[in-house]
Amino acid sequence: MNSRRNFLQKMAGSALALPVLSSITTKAHAAKPETPYQGPVLRVAILGLGSYGERVADAMKDCQRAKLVGVISGTPAKIKTWQSKYGIPEKNCYNYETLDQIKNNPDIDAVYVITPNGLHKDFSVRVAKAGKHVICEKPMANDAKEAQQMVDACKAAKVKLLIGYRMHFEPITLDIVHKRKAGDFGKVLFFQGLSGFIIGDPTQWRLNKKLAGGGAMMDIGIYSINGSRYMIGEDPIWVTAQEVKTNPEKFKEGVDETITFQLGFPGGAVASCLSTYSLNNLDRFFLDGDKGYAEMGPSTGYGPIKGRTNKGEVTYPHVTHQTVQMDEMSDIILKGKQPEIPVDGEEGLKDMKIVDAIFQAVKTGGKVMIKY
Amino acid sequence: MNSRRNFLQKMAGSALALPVLSSITTKAHAAKPETPYQGPVLRVAILGLGSYGERVADAMKDCQRAKLVGVISGTPAKIKTWQSKYGIPEKNCYNYETLDQIKNNPDIDAVYVITPNGLHKDFSVRVAKAGKHVICEKPMANDAKEAQQMVDACKAAKVKLLIGYRMHFEPITLDIVHKRKAGDFGKVLFFQGLSGFIIGDPTQWRLNKKLAGGGAMMDIGIYSINGSRYMIGEDPIWVTAQEVKTNPEKFKEGVDETITFQLGFPGGAVASCLSTYSLNNLDRFFLDGDKGYAEMGPSTGYGPIKGRTNKGEVTYPHVTHQTVQMDEMSDIILKGKQPEIPVDGEEGLKDMKIVDAIFQAVKTGGKVMIKY
Repeated sequence: MNSRRNFLQKMAGSALALPVLSSITTKAHAAKPETPYQGPVLRVAILGLGSYGERVADAMKDCQRAKLVGVISGTPAKIKTWQSKYGIPEKNCYNYETLDQIKNNPDIDAVYVITPNGLHKDFSVRVAKAGKHVICEKPMANDAKEAQQMVDACKAAKVKLLIGYRMHFEPITLDIVHKRKAGDFGKVLFFQGLSGFIIGDPTQWRLNKKLAGGGAMMDIGIYSINGSRYMIGEDPIWVTAQEVKTNPEKFKEGVDETITFQLGFPGGAVASCLSTYSLNNLDRFFLDGDKGYAEMGPSTGYGPIKGRTNKGEVTYPHVTHQTVQMDEMSDIILKGKQPEIPVDGEEGLKDMKIVDAIFQAVKTGGKVMIKY
Repeated sequence: MNSRRNFLQKMAGSALALPVLSSITTKAHAAKPETPYQGPVLRVAILGLGSYGERVADAMKDCQRAKLVGVISGTPAKIKTWQSKYGIPEKNCYNYETLDQIKNNPDIDAVYVITPNGLHKDFSVRVAKAGKHVICEKPMANDAKEAQQMVDACKAAKVKLLIGYRMHFEPITLDIVHKRKAGDFGKVLFFQGLSGFIIGDPTQWRLNKKLAGGGAMMDIGIYSINGSRYMIGEDPIWVTAQEVKTNPEKFKEGVDETITFQLGFPGGAVASCLSTYSLNNLDRFFLDGDKGYAEMGPSTGYGPIKGRTNKGEVTYPHVTHQTVQMDEMSDIILKGKQPEIPVDGEEGLKDMKIVDAIFQAVKTGGKVMIKY
């Protein structure tokens, strides 16, 4: 059973009970323009044809400014299936041996790397060297060192590097970030992120240190790390962390089951977060300032996201996160658009530095300062 | 402005948005017996006639098994006011010089000490030595050493020592504790307690280290500490803690403004808590197990308390906490009743050991083991 997919998809169990009355409904953005889109389209190949790759491919069917045109996989049967399902021409299909030849293909602009974390760095560097823009799923690498190599490789190859931070384009999230910027919550002093689900099959790559780079932290805790940054609007300068392992059989050396961690921010705010593979449907954000608060739950699942502030509910029609993400990434790559919350390699690198600091803090037991 | 009283009284701002539909309403306990109570009544004198003492006195008007019969105060004018307001006879009035003569008064069974924390120990020891049962407001002392002295003094004097843990008798709290004991939430692995309010007048005793024993932790953080214990049903064995101070002018040396702390429990559960004097209306509990969860907000204010589990809302008619507490404490003292969640000196001493460990962890930056 793919418990992770089920979790991110459903998560209804822990949904915030939003007030039925006295809600503030904000008018939704127009879903589609009236005239068909005429501008440039980002032509994307997906590398790694697992379940999340499939979710992205399905979501891209509704994209206007991005299009799935190619696939890269080590499994010939998967390539065949995808070709027929998504209409991929033979000339845009690659395996891991032929990948580097993609540089000669003028019909592919970017490659979206959706493999296990431990393979992100090598594939991203190869894609960059082949002259294609890189979109890489998060966490971008196993650690900050690898992440830095990816940033450097993309810079050297003069291609863009974007990380799959779908929440950075999610309308309820953005609305709450706007409210925080407008001072609606006053001086923000506390963020709480609870991220977790009960992971199933013990043989999956997510429980393999080499492929996953860790355990729950790399997979689901990263949402609370990244969320603390965009919700507070600063980057943390210190971290403390505590690990608890109730099942060392399932969660082997280097694979974290449960970690509580705290992040200190320059403005005096503190974040208190939980990352766990042993509690289900845990997906809650809470941002508190001296004048108001915001809370979200589900806060980072595939949606619908639910949010409210001290003034009432924040509602937008649900949009498929990956559809919006890929349309927006098209604008970032092809038109130089600056997203409101960054999604570039440097943004991903910051998260990896925080993850490294968390693992170090677990080991040392003390406060670890973070340098960017 | 008494921001604390306002906070504990209102706290509606951060109330959980409870589901209006699909709620599970549990039948309330019968509010009053049909025949008048005929049993023994605990005759109580209140020592320290501040705003909380007044709240207790008002609540006791509705008690059946306890009665306010005396006062002890250093301010003659206050004694006069209370005498007329609560019908206290002259022979049951004491000041801090005459307090010890209370031993010759056969009409007083117990003294409820409701002074600043720093005075609890000395007054409690004096009351014990005068042969009266001691009820002491929480936190029971400035530190565990003082708390131990109180326990010892009451033992030596063969009087009971109870701490004012009003939440231990609150019906929604007890219902959720029952559900946890019955296994409704499965294996409990996480508790989160957020406790805070913005404190007003900087000259009040609560911001005086000697009188308060600390800052927010002693005043409001104690709710999350104690709550973690009755919600999880175990006593923590380690603690880590991080302090943040944004206003050192208001919060002087030894007076904590904001502390995040984590408690590790023998069964593998972890608690992640916030104690702060810089965020308003913060009063939330969240208990999570591998089969379900409970949340409360307000969770420890004067009520109405709101609670729900993954199965729906938990509702009981609001009861005045201090009325129930004093009736129950009467049964504990006069009839030897065992409360479901202890309220004795040993219970208070545990909290003080945890507070001491938190302050130590803030200083050392590392994990501090707790011994009981």
